[in-house]
Amino acid sequence: MDFKEELKQYQEHINNALKNYIKKDKCPEEILNQSMEYSLMAGGKRLRPILVMATYQLFKKDIEICMPFAVAIEMVHNFSLIHDDLPGIDNDDFRHGKLTNHKQFNEATAILAGDRLLNNAYVVISKELENSVNQDMTKKIKIVKEFSQAVDKMILGEFVDTEFEGKQISEEYLEYIHKNKTAALLILSVRMGAILADASQEDLEKLTSYAEKIGLAFQIKDDILSEEGDEKVLGKPVGNDKKLGKCTYVSKYGLIGAKEKLEKITKEAIEEIKVYKEKAEFLIELAKYIQNRNK
Amino acid sequence: MDFKEELKQYQEHINNALKNYIKKDKCPEEILNQSMEYSLMAGGKRLRPILVMATYQLFKKDIEICMPFAVAIEMVHNFSLIHDDLPGIDNDDFRHGKLTNHKQFNEATAILAGDRLLNNAYVVISKELENSVNQDMTKKIKIVKEFSQAVDKMILGEFVDTEFEGKQISEEYLEYIHKNKTAALLILSVRMGAILADASQEDLEKLTSYAEKIGLAFQIKDDILSEEGDEKVLGKPVGNDKKLGKCTYVSKYGLIGAKEKLEKITKEAIEEIKVYKEKAEFLIELAKYIQNRNK
Repeated sequence: MDFKEELKQYQEHINNALKNYIKKDKCPEEILNQSMEYSLMAGGKRLRPILVMATYQLFKKDIEICMPFAVAIEMVHNFSLIHDDLPGIDNDDFRHGKLTNHKQFNEATAILAGDRLLNNAYVVISKELENSVNQDMTKKIKIVKEFSQAVDKMILGEFVDTEFEGKQISEEYLEYIHKNKTAALLILSVRMGAILADASQEDLEKLTSYAEKIGLAFQIKDDILSEEGDEKVLGKPVGNDKKLGKCTYVSKYGLIGAKEKLEKITKEAIEEIKVYKEKAEFLIELAKYIQNRNK
Repeated sequence: MDFKEELKQYQEHINNALKNYIKKDKCPEEILNQSMEYSLMAGGKRLRPILVMATYQLFKKDIEICMPFAVAIEMVHNFSLIHDDLPGIDNDDFRHGKLTNHKQFNEATAILAGDRLLNNAYVVISKELENSVNQDMTKKIKIVKEFSQAVDKMILGEFVDTEFEGKQISEEYLEYIHKNKTAALLILSVRMGAILADASQEDLEKLTSYAEKIGLAFQIKDDILSEEGDEKVLGKPVGNDKKLGKCTYVSKYGLIGAKEKLEKITKEAIEEIKVYKEKAEFLIELAKYIQNRNK
């Protein structure tokens, strides 16, 4: 199947699953539900849930077992976007051309919508645990532990990123931020799919390495787009990193150097999964998609 | 043992357990750790973890099995305090006479410290699940589900409270707010202790009812103190509810009516647990303590 078509099918699958968790009833908390839906259904790329599903399908077919975890990780991703955009943190008014949550609703609602999305991820997961008592229990508990620890890393990455904004930081700290803020959830996605599919320890290591590399590629590409992307396509101003004196892969290696690094790391990511032959095709194309995206 | 002495012993036990979860190492997120510790160790009453432990001890002795859950619920309680105090929500500068988290640190740090305390509750719980694979699993999974659902209720209660601040609300909504914002975590505390101690369904129902009633008593007492408490003891201004036209138990039933209701509900709470005879002594005194506190 064509990559774009397969991507779309995965996106539709996760979007339908997410819709089941949106409550629309008349109730005192109606506006909070609307605010959560506003962000959750804002048309994100769904990269994390897609990684869960596509990794699972390297080994097994029926992805329904993945869906609660795919939904949970997308909830957590959206929680982090809502809180990052808040006036107290990045103070962003727009995300992908739409008003941010606190601008569309208000700050209190955005804070609590984020809190609730984070907690609802665990509501979804704990229901799934209850449904599988005495069945697949060990691997699901392993996943819950990895899930909570990866979310912790993501929050730490966001904190350090915020703490050092506009300051010169060491290479060590730059790496700390990217490893935690972006890569932790991508690695978790791939590992959840692999663990659910009973992948071997060797497979798990290969796939973790693949996820680390596409996480790094994602970040390098972000830095390149921030420097020379198309403002209209990107939906945000270009050149700000430079103005703010931010330490990025572009400021560190230059534009050409960063592009070379992106090329190299994408190739390495693809190399990690070549062993799965034609089954890896989607994940290979996904790595190229991350490298070549223009927004 | 004297109630005050027993209360102090429980407080020391939970404080020691909490200290184990505080990280002090030199690391990029050092300030975030400090901010979490600032709130977590600010000298709260520890009502929720104490309810977990004391309920457990109606049935069994060694409370160590309770501690991860007692720690987790105190983390969640502190997350909710930090976020409620934020400028975007209640905008409070002081809590119990100390600067609120965002005033002592900054807003970004307070938002992320709250997020991390909420998520860390699940880090603690999922480690505990992993340690008990094939042992007490069913009851612990039941607890995780109830935990996540009670936290959801707490967030909903906070949202509706915020949404309707300064507006006249119906009795139905007033009850919704209290049932969710305060009572849900108190009920959860008691239920966790009981489930961990393998209490029967009948016991669980009795204790749930006890917790509902002390939750309501707690709220009525809060409303009474807001009307006629001692500002110096309370550490916050008195009479604000009236000024804001808030719908409270005092505005609904008058001061005398509210006090009668408090007396009645406390007696009913005590009635629920009399069956446990001398073992219930601490929980009986706790109900009276909630009724008679002056802050």
